[in-house]
Amino acid sequence: MAGPLTGITVVDVTTNISGPSLTMILADLGAEIIKIERPDTGDDSRGMGPFWEGEGVYFLHINRNKNSIVIDLKQENGSKIVYDLVEKADVFVENFRYKKAEKMGLGYEKLKEVNPSLVYCSLSAYGQDGPLRERSGYDAIAQADSGIIGINGAEGSEIARVPVSVLDQGSAMWGAIGIISALLHKEKTGEGQLVTTSLYETGVFWVGYHMLSWLATGQEPKKNGAGHTAFAPYGAFYASDAPVMIGISNNSLFRRLCNVLGKEEWVTDPRYETNPKRVENRENLRVAIENILQSKPADEWVGLLAAAGVPSSKVKKISEVVEDEQAEAINMWKKVPHSSIKDFKLPRLPFELSNSSAEVKQAPPKLGENTKDILEKLGYDEAKIENLLKDKTIQNTEEKAESR
Amino acid sequence: MAGPLTGITVVDVTTNISGPSLTMILADLGAEIIKIERPDTGDDSRGMGPFWEGEGVYFLHINRNKNSIVIDLKQENGSKIVYDLVEKADVFVENFRYKKAEKMGLGYEKLKEVNPSLVYCSLSAYGQDGPLRERSGYDAIAQADSGIIGINGAEGSEIARVPVSVLDQGSAMWGAIGIISALLHKEKTGEGQLVTTSLYETGVFWVGYHMLSWLATGQEPKKNGAGHTAFAPYGAFYASDAPVMIGISNNSLFRRLCNVLGKEEWVTDPRYETNPKRVENRENLRVAIENILQSKPADEWVGLLAAAGVPSSKVKKISEVVEDEQAEAINMWKKVPHSSIKDFKLPRLPFELSNSSAEVKQAPPKLGENTKDILEKLGYDEAKIENLLKDKTIQNTEEKAESR
Repeated sequence: MAGPLTGITVVDVTTNISGPSLTMILADLGAEIIKIERPDTGDDSRGMGPFWEGEGVYFLHINRNKNSIVIDLKQENGSKIVYDLVEKADVFVENFRYKKAEKMGLGYEKLKEVNPSLVYCSLSAYGQDGPLRERSGYDAIAQADSGIIGINGAEGSEIARVPVSVLDQGSAMWGAIGIISALLHKEKTGEGQLVTTSLYETGVFWVGYHMLSWLATGQEPKKNGAGHTAFAPYGAFYASDAPVMIGISNNSLFRRLCNVLGKEEWVTDPRYETNPKRVENRENLRVAIENILQSKPADEWVGLLAAAGVPSSKVKKISEVVEDEQAEAINMWKKVPHSSIKDFKLPRLPFELSNSSAEVKQAPPKLGENTKDILEKLGYDEAKIENLLKDKTIQNTEEKAESR
Repeated sequence: MAGPLTGITVVDVTTNISGPSLTMILADLGAEIIKIERPDTGDDSRGMGPFWEGEGVYFLHINRNKNSIVIDLKQENGSKIVYDLVEKADVFVENFRYKKAEKMGLGYEKLKEVNPSLVYCSLSAYGQDGPLRERSGYDAIAQADSGIIGINGAEGSEIARVPVSVLDQGSAMWGAIGIISALLHKEKTGEGQLVTTSLYETGVFWVGYHMLSWLATGQEPKKNGAGHTAFAPYGAFYASDAPVMIGISNNSLFRRLCNVLGKEEWVTDPRYETNPKRVENRENLRVAIENILQSKPADEWVGLLAAAGVPSSKVKKISEVVEDEQAEAINMWKKVPHSSIKDFKLPRLPFELSNSSAEVKQAPPKLGENTKDILEKLGYDEAKIENLLKDKTIQNTEEKAESR
C-alpha cells in the first residue's frame, strides 16, 4: 500500500527536533524527503546523546524514511541547488530563526517565485510577529513561556518540564496538519500557500482549558500533581507496593469504583454523589480510597478495577513500556535494517490507515548519503556534480549501508 | 477565505475530550460538524467544571464551530437518522469503547455499506487489538501506561501527570492528521478508509526518545525535573526573585551564555567545552550558574539573555499567559459572540494558513440547538420531525442564541 502522500516531494532544511519531527510525519505518510544538511556536522541532533553504535538516538528516532544531501547554503551555488530542488518539489519546510530564511534567499516570497504552487511551512519558536518573534527557543523555554511548566508537578514541588518535548513534537504535528490541509487545498485549486506554526502557539493552545478556567473564575490554576481540576477521584493512589492511577469522570464510573472497593454506600453519600461534590471533597475522598488500596498490591487492584471497567493503571517505567504486551500486540515497533545497529527498531506513528498506510521503511540516513543520487535525479551531470564537490558546495558520503 | 476542509461534512458521535478535540480541528479548518449528543445531558464535558455562566469551560473550549443534534442512539429510529446523515457525509468519528460502535450498528463495516467512500475514524484508549483493548481510558491513565508519568517531575518528587491532557489533545491531532490524509487520498482516488488512533499509541510514540535511549544504553531514564537528558545547561535556574528557564543545546549558545554571565573562561574549560562534557558535569555547572544568577531578578536576566540570543524565559503563570503581549500580537485570541457569556473569546488553533484559513467563527452550541435545522437540510419533512420529537428519538432546544 502506498502512503497518502506518495508522489509529494518535500525540501527540508530543518534541524534539531521540531522541524525534523514534522518532516518525519510527512515521510512516514509516503512523501519523499530531501533533507538538506550543512557540511561536516549536519543536523545538530546527530550530536545529541545518548548514542546507539555512535548515532544520536534523537536523530535516529525522527529521521527515518529521509534522504540526506549536504549543501553549503552559505555559498551562492548552494542556494541555486535549493532553487532547482524547490522548482520540482511540492513542500518546503524551515525552522530557522526569524527572517533567517529571507536573509539566505530562502524566504516564502522568493521561493514562491521559483515555484508558485509551493506549500511553504515556517516552524518557529514564537511566531512571525510580536515582541518575542526574534527569540530563539527550545521546548522547555516555550513550556515556561506558555504556562505549562508553571502548573506541572505537585503543589510545592521542584520545577519540572514535561519530559517528552511536547512542544517540539506538538508544533511538528500542527505543522503537519497545516501542510496536509494545504496539500488538499492545492489538489482542489492548484494553489500553494504559507503555513506558519510555533512552539509558543502550541503551548498557549494546550493550556486553553486552564486559561478559560481563569477567565471564568479569576482563580489562578494550581499545581495538581497527578490530580485533575475538573474530576474526582482522579490521580495516583498508593496501593501496598506501588501507586495506581485511577480516573473517574462520571457517576457511572464512580459507582463501579465503589463496588470494587466494597463501598457501595459512597454512591449516595451527599459528599460524593455528583462530580462537582466529589471535586469539592476530593482530599477526603483520596484518603478514604487510599486506606482501602493499602490492603493489596498495585497489580491486583489494577486487575480488579479493569475487570469492572474502571480506568486505571500502574505507573510504568520506560523499560516496561518498551516491552509492553499491548505495544507488541498493536505493532508499535517496526524493525528497520540499519548498517551498524543490530536489531534496530523504531516506533511507528500513533495512527493507522486501512487503505494508504503510514510506514517505517528506511533507517535514518548517514550524513550526505544521498547527495549524488538526489542531484543525478534532478538532472545534474557528472561534471557539474564533480565541480560542486570540488568547491565544497556539496559533500558526499562514501560509506553507504549495504542493506538500503 | 474558506477553510481547506470547506465542503466536508463530519458526523461526530464523540464525547468527553479526545474525540471532540479532534472534530474541533476539522471544524476550525472549515468542515461542517454534525455533533450527535444523547438526550437530556448531552456530551459528558458539558457537566465538567469550572463553569462560565453555567457552561463547562472544557466543553466551551473544544466545541466551537459545531452544530448539535440530539438523537437517542438506543432507539432503532435513532440509528436510521445516523445512516441518513452518514450517507451524505464524508467523515464519521467515534471514541466509544472497544466494539461498542459495532454493537450500536455504527461500526465501520456497516457504515461503509451506507457510504462506500466514507472516512471512518476510531479514537480509542488502547487501540483495536491486544490485551488492553477493552479497557476504558482517560488521559492520566494512558500517561501512566505509556511511561510519561513515570518520568515526569524532579527526582523523588510526588507523582504528577502532565497537566494539559496531552494524550487527549495529542491523539486528537494524530486522528486529524490521519483523517485529512485520508481525505487527500479520497480526493485523488475516490476511496474512503478506516483511520485508527488511541491515547496509548500517542503516549508510547511520544516517549520514543526515552525508549530508544533505553534500548541503546540499558539505563532506565530518570526523572529529570526541568532538565534534559541530552543537553546541559538546560533547566530552571533561580534568580534572586524567581526561576529562569535556560536551554543550551550547542557550543555557540553556550558561548553566548558565558558572555552574559561574565564567564568567558568556561568556553575553553575542559569540563564544559562540549555538550557531552557539560552533560557529564551538569550539576557542577548548574550550581556555578545559579551562584551568578542570584545577583539579579529574573526579568533582568531574561532581558540580558534574550538580547544575547540565549533561549530563556521566566516560568509564567496562566494569568500571565492569557494577558501576554506575544499572544496578543499573534492574534491567539478570537472573540466569538455567545448568547450568555459577555466578552467570550477562545484561542485559535496553533497554526495559520495564508490562503485557506483556520477560523473560530461560532460559539459552542446549546444541547440540541441545531436538531431541526440539520434534519430539515437532510430532507426530513415537518411531520417526520414531529413524530421523532414525540417518540423522543430526537430533542430540540427552544433556547437559541440571538447572535448566531
